[in-house]
Amino acid sequence: MSFPPRYRSRADVSGAESRAKAVQAAIELFAASGYKGTSIARVAERTGLSQSGLLHHFPSKAALLSAVLEARDAEDGEFLSAGGDAPMGWAAFDSLAALVARNSTRPQLVGLYVRVSAEAVEPGHPAHEWLRSHYANVEAWLTDAVRVGQEQGEIRSDAPVDALVRTTIAVLDGLQQQWLLNPGGVSMPKLFNAHVQGLRAQWSSAAEPPPR
Amino acid sequence: MSFPPRYRSRADVSGAESRAKAVQAAIELFAASGYKGTSIARVAERTGLSQSGLLHHFPSKAALLSAVLEARDAEDGEFLSAGGDAPMGWAAFDSLAALVARNSTRPQLVGLYVRVSAEAVEPGHPAHEWLRSHYANVEAWLTDAVRVGQEQGEIRSDAPVDALVRTTIAVLDGLQQQWLLNPGGVSMPKLFNAHVQGLRAQWSSAAEPPPR
Repeated sequence: MSFPPRYRSRADVSGAESRAKAVQAAIELFAASGYKGTSIARVAERTGLSQSGLLHHFPSKAALLSAVLEARDAEDGEFLSAGGDAPMGWAAFDSLAALVARNSTRPQLVGLYVRVSAEAVEPGHPAHEWLRSHYANVEAWLTDAVRVGQEQGEIRSDAPVDALVRTTIAVLDGLQQQWLLNPGGVSMPKLFNAHVQGLRAQWSSAAEPPPR
Repeated sequence: MSFPPRYRSRADVSGAESRAKAVQAAIELFAASGYKGTSIARVAERTGLSQSGLLHHFPSKAALLSAVLEARDAEDGEFLSAGGDAPMGWAAFDSLAALVARNSTRPQLVGLYVRVSAEAVEPGHPAHEWLRSHYANVEAWLTDAVRVGQEQGEIRSDAPVDALVRTTIAVLDGLQQQWLLNPGGVSMPKLFNAHVQGLRAQWSSAAEPPPR
């Protein structure tokens, strides 16, 4: 045990607070100005730290971005699986609908995601690998979810798995863009539900095949 | 008539060429680095002009961006209407499918659109008004297209117009993002067609109502 413990403890609390504040400031600034358009100096200023104080917690702007994105993915992952296993079959689409409803109360996080994921398409971007693995994870989960739904007989065996997965991810992403531009005129939850109901109408095993 | 006309004419040709080269260079750089991440100096360098030479043709970076985006919209608009009136009913969705097929050969223009439209969500961005009117135009056209399809009896009268319009725009936008990240693994035309076929299966007047 090191001495004096009381001062150490206060420093730890203060460190955790500073990290949390810096992450929140970074979310706001990256959302508004993108990663490239945001300087470490501006994050430090909004956090109430000196630049070297901020760099003590996050050694680079890229490290700060990683912390922000990983925190968001971890939180969303917990929400989607509700503390248990990842949902399968149509339940996976229902859990995404719940996430969309939750996102529609969090414009800054949505703005961050839209801005950074558009920037990070570029291979040299510090979030490029994060973005690739983010999509790979969502695609792998939804692909499994559809296949399990097919095995369990709730999704038709002739459903085009790739199209169900990728159009659903596209609707998620595209509605975020429309909502950011027009928050009062675009109901993300209602529109995402319409998409999922369309998939169910066409591909639920209980449904008749659509006319050719 | 001014003197000497031959020199005037050569300058005009050279001016048009320089403008076209600058627009192409701007497309490439804005697509790779975004609007904010691209300097006029870099556009000038790639165009083969001095910075003041470039500013002679485009008085600001914002003017260059406007020229790029308006050229793209004008070209897409002509393609979609094929020189005639804007298509209505399901034909509007078919013309979008043709545009998606064409876009899948133009990664730079798609990259430009994805990057700039994510940035321009921010109200202060120089392309913000362009983006708002771009979405307003697409929404107005597709809304009319669905309503005319309903009046003419090819789209069911109980089809949710707003959801058809907005999920279709979301699929267009979202697939571009996925394709830029994974050009070999994502077939935009195939996936967009799957979305449109889903809408037709559910909402064509010829189709039976889906089971409740």
